[in-house]
Amino acid sequence: MSYPVSIYRMAHFNAAHQLAVPSWSAERNNETFGKCANPNFHGHNYEVEVRVTGHVDPETGILINLKDLKVIIEKEVEDRFDHKNLNLDCPEFIERIPTVENICIVIHEILRPHIPSDLDLGIRLYETPRNFAEYPGK
Amino acid sequence: MSYPVSIYRMAHFNAAHQLAVPSWSAERNNETFGKCANPNFHGHNYEVEVRVTGHVDPETGILINLKDLKVIIEKEVEDRFDHKNLNLDCPEFIERIPTVENICIVIHEILRPHIPSDLDLGIRLYETPRNFAEYPGK
Amino acid sequence: MSYPVSIYRMAHFNAAHQLAVPSWSAERNNETFGKCANPNFHGHNYEVEVRVTGHVDPETGILINLKDLKVIIEKEVEDRFDHKNLNLDCPEFIERIPTVENICIVIHEILRPHIPSDLDLGIRLYETPRNFAEYPGK
Amino acid sequence: MSYPVSIYRMAHFNAAHQLAVPSWSAERNNETFGKCANPNFHGHNYEVEVRVTGHVDPETGILINLKDLKVIIEKEVEDRFDHKNLNLDCPEFIERIPTVENICIVIHEILRPHIPSDLDLGIRLYETPRNFAEYPGK
Amino acid sequence: MSYPVSIYRMAHFNAAHQLAVPSWSAERNNETFGKCANPNFHGHNYEVEVRVTGHVDPETGILINLKDLKVIIEKEVEDRFDHKNLNLDCPEFIERIPTVENICIVIHEILRPHIPSDLDLGIRLYETPRNFAEYPGK
Amino acid sequence: MSYPVSIYRMAHFNAAHQLAVPSWSAERNNETFGKCANPNFHGHNYEVEVRVTGHVDPETGILINLKDLKVIIEKEVEDRFDHKNLNLDCPEFIERIPTVENICIVIHEILRPHIPSDLDLGIRLYETPRNFAEYPGK
Repeated sequence: MSYPVSIYRMAHFNAAHQLAVPSWSAERNNETFGKCANPNFHGHNYEVEVRVTGHVDPETGILINLKDLKVIIEKEVEDRFDHKNLNLDCPEFIERIPTVENICIVIHEILRPHIPSDLDLGIRLYETPRNFAEYPGK
Repeated sequence: MSYPVSIYRMAHFNAAHQLAVPSWSAERNNETFGKCANPNFHGHNYEVEVRVTGHVDPETGILINLKDLKVIIEKEVEDRFDHKNLNLDCPEFIERIPTVENICIVIHEILRPHIPSDLDLGIRLYETPRNFAEYPGK
Repeated sequence: MSYPVSIYRMAHFNAAHQLAVPSWSAERNNETFGKCANPNFHGHNYEVEVRVTGHVDPETGILINLKDLKVIIEKEVEDRFDHKNLNLDCPEFIERIPTVENICIVIHEILRPHIPSDLDLGIRLYETPRNFAEYPGK
Repeated sequence: MSYPVSIYRMAHFNAAHQLAVPSWSAERNNETFGKCANPNFHGHNYEVEVRVTGHVDPETGILINLKDLKVIIEKEVEDRFDHKNLNLDCPEFIERIPTVENICIVIHEILRPHIPSDLDLGIRLYETPRNFAEYPGK
Repeated sequence: MSYPVSIYRMAHFNAAHQLAVPSWSAERNNETFGKCANPNFHGHNYEVEVRVTGHVDPETGILINLKDLKVIIEKEVEDRFDHKNLNLDCPEFIERIPTVENICIVIHEILRPHIPSDLDLGIRLYETPRNFAEYPGK
Repeated sequence: MSYPVSIYRMAHFNAAHQLAVPSWSAERNNETFGKCANPNFHGHNYEVEVRVTGHVDPETGILINLKDLKVIIEKEVEDRFDHKNLNLDCPEFIERIPTVENICIVIHEILRPHIPSDLDLGIRLYETPRNFAEYPGK
């Protein structure tokens, strides 16, 4: 019983995005990002997996209150990104391209202050069921 | 053995779209379409289910050649809509709003001439795993 | 374009239930319902698929407003059955055993008055991913 | 309540098969069936969806006893085809090529005598999650 | 080839449960556990992922006999918890609340003596597809 | 931002195989591998999860070019194993039995030279949705 336990909660948001380095030519962006560089945007159903790791409270048998965690994720992640254009509507992606890797890191940065500091936080983000990223964070 | 059989093939494309009647005010569009009216677009991973119904050839045991059907769907549906903005990049949606219902009907119209006329064609389109439409067509 | 279109919306609820005919002996209930007759209850994650069928409005491209449909399903189905004991908490199942077939029919009865009468309504209910029922209704 | 209800049960089996008309040349089989004509066989995880349609017994709330249906499917379908080579081990496919369409029809023929005659029986067979067939039968 | 390999096997059980600290007031339990504190119970389709980690036998290419592992999981986990009320029927949860975290730890304790001591054992438990826990154990 | 990120890409192939130690008797193979020892082969839809772990390029926000990774996996894994008999068609399994563990290790060996040496590579292989293996490699 001395091993840490992880609890996972899934969330989702539907968003448009474009992958392109602003200072690059269209050709170079197409070469690197292919169809994802379409200047008119495309989009995805993003599935977010939030992992919190730590020790279970012996009285309640829970690691973190899932009701509270669900509200935090809704407010901080879903309300922020759902039905948005990540490039145009979201200041988080002004200086960082909204790749699946970067969105994963940004969600970690957003949620980290809301999770007790003695618990670890990890984020996995599915851009499609066949293409996803994971940021184990701390 | 006299009943018709259906064969199904799944395909997918990732696209951006916006739901709004161009002649309406932003307020009226928001009231009707909610977050889907975001003028900067949002997006989805669309899953297309193509159904072809008819009788099996007794010698080959097949209804329609799946290799050929797969190529038709790739060329006519996936290449046309994948990584596109349905409102800006696709002439099919100049006069029709790209709702899940309309995209379903449009895909039926596109594929119908490519399927032998003695076979029925139906389309189901998943906008998300929890929100989808079906057009049984003919 | 003269064929009707269907739009589908998924919902879910987690509930406990027991399958047993009250007037039967425990032996007869065990013979018929097996482990499902456990008098202390067991439970499921129920997935509800709501289908509405009719014609698309040519101006908006929609069949029924999904925002409104979602609210109706939340209020009438999810709030009513989620985290409930179907046998003890839900008057709908006082005189009908909460089998997957009956729950399907009951959800149809509950939702029917809330859907415009010119649209058809069908319900599919997943008790598990491998065991489900469908009531096409009208 | 006068509409028929359907109950569905999923089953599965893992099998090898080859698609080729025995009297055809290798070239003609490759042209028609592509990689599926590999004479050394390939294989799939088949998912079978069995649908039984009829009226619910008002006392028990069930259409057909699922415990019994599960045993019939295990004995007649899973035990017969699981971990088999459909071409070499299964007499059902001596005169019929084991296409997804034909396997669907064969399963219907096998199960039909075991289902009460006042109930309809339909079979859907997934060869992969993206390629499947349906035989509505009677 | 010197890295350990993991083999995974899924199992499932359907059960009822209630989350509440017996010595707390109904108000405090509702505040902490929300709808999960319903004294009449609710339920879930639990999916168990059993992971065994170690080195592959060079002759057979297997880490642990999956046939045997499947039987152990059926007997020790599925038969014990399937179609049960975890609070009323299962002595494992007399002194521990059946939260997803605790059920995960309990399954690890139950299976650990049945797995060779040179192999590691980890458990992941899905309470719903969107809410799950993991206990990496040893 | 100093933690490594992982990017995942799914691929799949459908193949036949048999599990048996060539030097063993049929009885001993049946005892160990059960139905998987069928000398006429059986088959599966294999799902491959390729994980690449490292640091994100600050300019592009990507870890590895997914377009390129997809082509490598198609060429090196899918083209090699799809619609093949792993025992008869694939020299990789002449001296190693194609268990899910060994296929996982073999795919790691095949892909490792194609991934930049400063990035880690891990493979997970689903033989069925309920039976899978993972090789974390390096």
